[in-house]
Amino acid sequence: MNESHDPHLECWVRSAHNASTDFPIQNLPFGIFRRAESDDEPRVGVAIGDQILDVTTWLSEGLFDGAAAEAAARCALPTLNALMALGNEAISALRRGIVAILSTDGIGYENFKRLGDACLTPVSGAQLFAPVKVGDYTDFYASVYHATNVGSMFRPDNPLLPNYKFVPIGYHGRASSIVASGTEIIRPRGQTKVPTSEIPTFGPSRMLDYESELGFFVGRGNTLGAPIPIQRAAEHIFGFCLVNDWSARDIQAWEYQPLGPFLAKSFATSTSPWVVTAEAIEPFRAPAFARDAGDPAPLDYLSAPDDQKNGGIQLFLEVWMQSAIMRDQKVPAVRLSRTNFGSMYWTPAQMLAHHASNGCNLRPGDLLGSGTVSGKDKTERGCLLELTWRGAEPVTLPTGEQRRFLEDGDEVIMRGYCERDGFARIGFGDCRGIVSPAAG
Amino acid sequence: MNESHDPHLECWVRSAHNASTDFPIQNLPFGIFRRAESDDEPRVGVAIGDQILDVTTWLSEGLFDGAAAEAAARCALPTLNALMALGNEAISALRRGIVAILSTDGIGYENFKRLGDACLTPVSGAQLFAPVKVGDYTDFYASVYHATNVGSMFRPDNPLLPNYKFVPIGYHGRASSIVASGTEIIRPRGQTKVPTSEIPTFGPSRMLDYESELGFFVGRGNTLGAPIPIQRAAEHIFGFCLVNDWSARDIQAWEYQPLGPFLAKSFATSTSPWVVTAEAIEPFRAPAFARDAGDPAPLDYLSAPDDQKNGGIQLFLEVWMQSAIMRDQKVPAVRLSRTNFGSMYWTPAQMLAHHASNGCNLRPGDLLGSGTVSGKDKTERGCLLELTWRGAEPVTLPTGEQRRFLEDGDEVIMRGYCERDGFARIGFGDCRGIVSPAAG
Repeated sequence: MNESHDPHLECWVRSAHNASTDFPIQNLPFGIFRRAESDDEPRVGVAIGDQILDVTTWLSEGLFDGAAAEAAARCALPTLNALMALGNEAISALRRGIVAILSTDGIGYENFKRLGDACLTPVSGAQLFAPVKVGDYTDFYASVYHATNVGSMFRPDNPLLPNYKFVPIGYHGRASSIVASGTEIIRPRGQTKVPTSEIPTFGPSRMLDYESELGFFVGRGNTLGAPIPIQRAAEHIFGFCLVNDWSARDIQAWEYQPLGPFLAKSFATSTSPWVVTAEAIEPFRAPAFARDAGDPAPLDYLSAPDDQKNGGIQLFLEVWMQSAIMRDQKVPAVRLSRTNFGSMYWTPAQMLAHHASNGCNLRPGDLLGSGTVSGKDKTERGCLLELTWRGAEPVTLPTGEQRRFLEDGDEVIMRGYCERDGFARIGFGDCRGIVSPAAG
Repeated sequence: MNESHDPHLECWVRSAHNASTDFPIQNLPFGIFRRAESDDEPRVGVAIGDQILDVTTWLSEGLFDGAAAEAAARCALPTLNALMALGNEAISALRRGIVAILSTDGIGYENFKRLGDACLTPVSGAQLFAPVKVGDYTDFYASVYHATNVGSMFRPDNPLLPNYKFVPIGYHGRASSIVASGTEIIRPRGQTKVPTSEIPTFGPSRMLDYESELGFFVGRGNTLGAPIPIQRAAEHIFGFCLVNDWSARDIQAWEYQPLGPFLAKSFATSTSPWVVTAEAIEPFRAPAFARDAGDPAPLDYLSAPDDQKNGGIQLFLEVWMQSAIMRDQKVPAVRLSRTNFGSMYWTPAQMLAHHASNGCNLRPGDLLGSGTVSGKDKTERGCLLELTWRGAEPVTLPTGEQRRFLEDGDEVIMRGYCERDGFARIGFGDCRGIVSPAAG
């Protein structure tokens, strides 16, 4: 076990010991911030309790050395990409340096008393940015429950296609429209066709949906033409974030044949502000999906004993919603679903190895999404399409409002955390977005 | 008519007057080059005859002013992106400045005699690079003949889907694996399944193909959430290039349902080294596709009188091939097809307006591909899948070799040009790639 996983590790930032915090000293996720209303350049910060540690300040005070200092030197930039490119050993060294600063018997507290706000910024006084400049965004479809549910709506005769249990199905998404948590989501316009008409019409989507996903970022990349064997996939995964892959179901249904979803998804994708490192996730590793007896074994290039044993993650994702009326009436957000990443048929390592198996080059900061994380039960469905069964079974909010799909003013809040006996709970922070009316 | 379109315009670079050149003074395409075996930083050049004009040298000699100088100042960079972002008026000013330098009665020749190689580099002594750092790559499917041919092979009962004549079908491609012309193309490995087997296998693709496409680059971008009306689409198109969207048909057939092509395409996409500006293309504008009487009219957001009248392009694309044996025996490359961009059901403006219609933000340097350009006749089929009808009708090469799909050692050479009575012919230069054996 890595020192950073020790649940008894103590920290002089008191809020890091709150039972409800996503950011104990065992987490230390990376993000991009600046002090609100300052002229600071956005730069790398690390969440600790309700504070953000400014890596660059601690570096200039001489509190990092060796590999940690080298990594910290990449924290003056407005994205995590250069840090990610160093590879996970460098990240581990930087994390050790940060633990040394923040732990109760560490070297940091005396410096904090001297430096104050210059080295630690309250989250409440900070502006957070999209953490990564994403070169390419790829979205998978790894929940067999999601694939079966959606398939049965779009293709009742043929819900789960014959390739599903062999191929980690994925497609290229749109990188330009990846936005930071909190960015407003403008309802897209597009072509839709109702079954009773021969002719489509163009207008605001009436079936706007969220999709709750786990994202993972590429750290060290590979050269074009050089696949990444599954045994080495973990070396290329920097860390994880929450992803809301907003989807216009009516546009999707009309456009997606034969080349897949396009404008139904490309108007916006939100990510959480914090990227939780692969190292922080380690204590929550779990066996890969338990395939049914009749399921095929993964082909060799997708199969490694370690990945079968530890490639899954004990991780929970929740979706919460607050309508405009709820906000006005100060009715707190309500939870719509809670799912476990254990329901994913493919592991992150399998998705990454598959992606590079044809020689495709993955670059530092490329984002791979898991696809909607849905489980077996109705309470575990990670999008409204499934939760309301394409609108047939609306959700009732505490105000009595009903939802088949998202209305203008609805805020969707995604949360995620890893939890296991004997370890400190770690989380991702919220991934939020409010739907605003279609433009024009 | 713009001065740069005048077919009688003369140039002191003699090779620009060769009948066979792609690069008369009426063309002036932009690319990225450096002198071979030099330590120069790659920078923007303009092709003229068999020479490359180094914009930065002429700028430092004080030969550009005003808007042209401002644009020329962005030519010291290793990609065209910053130049593209200025918008097409700035590009037009820079082109006027270059015409002033290169025309026979212009200011350039005396300077050339003094500066020599510093301002003009022979193409034969230059290294060319991928001209643009592509943020997002989108591939359309705009040839109704290609869509019908491919559809009838993959879905004999349902070749052209009901959405085709309403929606400019497209999908997100992979940006990281876009490579410069001349880059070797490593045969991808992947999952394929033969119909006689229940189980797929993993190995080198046996159905490797090319796709001959026209690409176009976004110049000035749009803000997320702000669609681009079709009436303004032309302002956002910087220029055009050739695209070879290499495709592994056996991987594609097995993976593409339900989310579209993924690893079948993401191993490599080649582009021509030169980007021909929208302004140079203007004399070759042509009416949009002549729809059949029974075809639906485009929806309003895809319809503009100017685009119907001038949105097409009188442009020819050719595919040539030379096998390894042909190369050894010094047998010249043979032409496999010649197609006309007039066979495209959708215009570039319609594709771009559709892409942004949901608010998706397009950024300077984003690449949009037309999809395979195929016409009605067999000689006009822009990929081997169509040309050999999935291998049923092999092509015979001059050596007697047969091709169903590409073999290792085959070189594919794409050429494109615009030609019309009363105007100087302009071309794109070759887009080349040789297939090399699968790795490992």
